[in-house]
Amino acid sequence: MDTTVGIGLLGAGTIGGTLIRRLVQEHDAIATKTGLDLQVRRVAVRDPAKRRAFDLPAELLTSDPAAVVADPAVQLIVEVMGGQTPAGDLVLSALRAGKPVVTANKALIAARGPELIAAAEESGVSLLFEAAVGGGIPIIRPLSETLAGEQVERVVGIVNGTTNFILTKMAEEGADYATALAEAQELGYAEPDPTADVSGADAADKAAILASLAFGTWVGPDQVYHEGIENLSAEDLAYAAELGYVVKLLAFAVRTPAGVSARVHPAMLPADHPLATIRGATNAIFIEGPSIGELLFAGPGAGGEPTATAVLGDVIDAARELLAGAQVAPRIQFSPSALVDFGDITTKWYVRLEVADRPGVLSRIAGEFGRADVSIKSVRQEGEGEGAVLLIVTHRAPEVRQRAAVQSLHDLDEVRSVGAVIRVESAEA
Amino acid sequence: MDTTVGIGLLGAGTIGGTLIRRLVQEHDAIATKTGLDLQVRRVAVRDPAKRRAFDLPAELLTSDPAAVVADPAVQLIVEVMGGQTPAGDLVLSALRAGKPVVTANKALIAARGPELIAAAEESGVSLLFEAAVGGGIPIIRPLSETLAGEQVERVVGIVNGTTNFILTKMAEEGADYATALAEAQELGYAEPDPTADVSGADAADKAAILASLAFGTWVGPDQVYHEGIENLSAEDLAYAAELGYVVKLLAFAVRTPAGVSARVHPAMLPADHPLATIRGATNAIFIEGPSIGELLFAGPGAGGEPTATAVLGDVIDAARELLAGAQVAPRIQFSPSALVDFGDITTKWYVRLEVADRPGVLSRIAGEFGRADVSIKSVRQEGEGEGAVLLIVTHRAPEVRQRAAVQSLHDLDEVRSVGAVIRVESAEA
Repeated sequence: MDTTVGIGLLGAGTIGGTLIRRLVQEHDAIATKTGLDLQVRRVAVRDPAKRRAFDLPAELLTSDPAAVVADPAVQLIVEVMGGQTPAGDLVLSALRAGKPVVTANKALIAARGPELIAAAEESGVSLLFEAAVGGGIPIIRPLSETLAGEQVERVVGIVNGTTNFILTKMAEEGADYATALAEAQELGYAEPDPTADVSGADAADKAAILASLAFGTWVGPDQVYHEGIENLSAEDLAYAAELGYVVKLLAFAVRTPAGVSARVHPAMLPADHPLATIRGATNAIFIEGPSIGELLFAGPGAGGEPTATAVLGDVIDAARELLAGAQVAPRIQFSPSALVDFGDITTKWYVRLEVADRPGVLSRIAGEFGRADVSIKSVRQEGEGEGAVLLIVTHRAPEVRQRAAVQSLHDLDEVRSVGAVIRVESAEA
Repeated sequence: MDTTVGIGLLGAGTIGGTLIRRLVQEHDAIATKTGLDLQVRRVAVRDPAKRRAFDLPAELLTSDPAAVVADPAVQLIVEVMGGQTPAGDLVLSALRAGKPVVTANKALIAARGPELIAAAEESGVSLLFEAAVGGGIPIIRPLSETLAGEQVERVVGIVNGTTNFILTKMAEEGADYATALAEAQELGYAEPDPTADVSGADAADKAAILASLAFGTWVGPDQVYHEGIENLSAEDLAYAAELGYVVKLLAFAVRTPAGVSARVHPAMLPADHPLATIRGATNAIFIEGPSIGELLFAGPGAGGEPTATAVLGDVIDAARELLAGAQVAPRIQFSPSALVDFGDITTKWYVRLEVADRPGVLSRIAGEFGRADVSIKSVRQEGEGEGAVLLIVTHRAPEVRQRAAVQSLHDLDEVRSVGAVIRVESAEA
C-alpha cells in the first residue's frame, strides 16, 4: 500500500517553519510510529528568497499560495499563515477540492467556522484545528471526541499566554503594565503590535471556539464580550493579593437553562484556585460537566515547538484519513441555542474608589449600590484624608446592575474617581 | 442516510449500567449533537433477573455474552465486564467478526493488547479504550493522536484513585493504612478485595498501556516493576511531611537512550510539585517531550459517571466509523525497543532506620552506603537512645546499588531494623 501523503503549507513562519523542520528531520521516526510517509511538496511564503531555519529544495517554495492549494502533488493543506484574508478563501478552496485542511488559525475558525466546516462535510474531508486553542495542549479533540457524550456546562481557562506572562510579571515583580508588556515583547511573548492579545480579542476567538464545540451551538466572536488587561495596574494587583486574590485574564464558556454565553475579561481568583497558580505563558483550561465533574488541561499555550506538535498530530490524522478514504474528524452538529446577553450574566465586582475621607462617605456610596440592587460583601479603606482609597467587593448581581451602581458613583462629590473595576470569580455568592 | 447503530454490552455493572442509563435518557441530546441514533440492542449480565438502575425491556438482557457478540442486530460491542476471561476471547471474536469494540478493561488491554489490536487492524475496525487509563480523563487519545508526532520522553502520573484516596487520608488525618483502607472500602473507593489497587498491579497495567502508546513499543504488564502502598505507615508519611515531601503512588513510563522502562511505586514528591497537590480519588498525568515541554491532565480517575463519559465518547467514535465505513482509531505501529531493567534505573531513596544511639553508628552506616557506591544527601535523627530513628535520604544511584546498601545495613549490630524504604522523586540529582 502506498503510504505517501503530499503536504502543502500556506505560511512558513514560526509554526510553519518548525513543522517543516520536524517533518524533514523526524520523517523516519514518524514513519516508524505511524506507518505514514509524509512529504512536504510545496510551501507558500511571502519571500521565497529569505533564509529559512529548515532545509528544503528552493523550487518547493513559492509566493503564490493558490498554486500550493491547486498543486496535484499536494493532498493535504496546512494553513499557518494566520489572519482571515487570504487564508479563509484558500482553506475554503482546498476543502472544496477535497483536500483535508489542518490550521492553527483561531481567528479564521472563530469567524468562518460554520462555513468552512460545512464545506469540509460536503467534500467528506476533515478540517482539523487542534492548535487553534491552547497551543500544544490537546483540548479540541478531547472536547469534541472524548466528551461528545457529556452535557458540558462550563469551560473556564487561561487561553492567552502573552497576557498571562504580563500579569505574572506585574503580580510577582510589581512591574507596571507598560514595563511588563515591553519585557514580553523583548522576549518574543508579545507581538510588536500587541493589541489582539492584550485587548482580549485573541482569547475571545478561542472562547467562541470552545463554547461552540462544548455546547454544539455556533457562537461567533462578535457574540463574545471581551475586555483586556490594558487598564490593570500594579496597584490593583497588589490590592488583589492583600484581599487573597490573583488577577488572571479568563475565558468563559457557560451553559445555563437560559442559554449559552461566552466572555473574556480579567478576573480575581482566590489565590488557592488551580488557575491562580498558572504562571508565565502557560495555558490551562477547566471543563466541567455533570458526569465528568472537573477536568483540567494545562501546558504550553504558545510557541513554535508545542504548537507544531499539535499541528503535526492533526497532519498525521488527516493523512490517515486520506489513506483510509473516509473522514476522521468528528462531525459535531451545530444547533441553534439562545445566547445569554452579557448584561444578564451575574458577577461579583471589585471596585477601587478614590474618595474624600469625610463622615458619611461610605453611607452615600453604599446607598448608590443599594439603589442599583447590588449588595456589598466587603469594604476596606486604605490611606486617609484626601488620598483615601476604598476597596469594595460586591456580592453577585447582573452586570447591568453592577454597571449602573458604579456609573452612579461618578456623580457623588465624595468620589474623586473610580480607579478600577475587576470582576471577582469565586465559588461563593 | 440511516444513522442507527446497534450496541451490545458485555456487562452492566457500575460503568455499564451508567452507560445504558445515559444512552437511553440522553438519546435525543446525543442525536442532536452527533447525528447518531444509538440503540442498545443486547446486554449480557450475570443475572438477568436482578433489578437494574436502567430501564430496558427484559428481553434485551441475556446471561450469554457470546450471544450478544453474535447478534446480527449488534454492530458495536462495549466490553465492561472486566477481567481477562472470558472478556478477552469475546472481544477477539467481536473484532474478528468486524465489530468495533469499546472497552474500559485495562488488564485485558495491558495483557493482550498486541493480539487484539492486530485483530482489529485485520478487520479494519477500531478497538477503543479511552476509559482504560485515567477514568474520565482524556489521555489515550491525546497520547496516540495529538501527540503522535511528539517524541515523548516521560509519562508520570497518579493513575489509581483508590490508593490516592488512602494516601490522602493517611497524610492529612494521620490515619494508619488499615483504617484508611477500611474507610475507602466503606465509601466504595476500594473493592472488598483491594489487592489489585493497593499492590500497584492496577497501576502497573495502566503504566504498561501508557508506555506502549507513548513510545510505540509494546510493554507488557509483566515488564513493569510494581510495588504497592501496603507497607507505608502514617509514621513515614509524617516524616515525609517534615522533610517537605508528600508520598504518592506513581506510575512512570520513561524513555532514555538505553531503552524504555515502566514502573509503579510509592514516591516522595516535593510538597509544591503539582502531583503532590492531587487529593482523594483524583488522577493526574504529566506528559513530557522535547517539543511539548510539560502537559498536565487531571480529573476523576474512577467512578461510574466519569468513566461512562469516556466510554460514551469512544462509542460515538466507533459508531461514526461504522457509518463512514473506515477505521477511525489511530494506527500506532509498535516496534521492538530495548527495555531497561528496573535494577539499572537510578532513583533516590529515603530510608528509615531504627538504630542504637551510640558513638560511631552513623559512620558505620555511612560506610555501608559508601561501599555500595551510594552517596548520602541528608541524615536526620529523631529521638534518642535505644529508640533513636535515622532518616536518610540518598543521592541518585542505580536501584541495585541502593538495594545492596540497604541489604548490608541488616548485618550491622547498631541497626535494630530497616523501618521503611521509599523512593524520592525530585528534580535534583
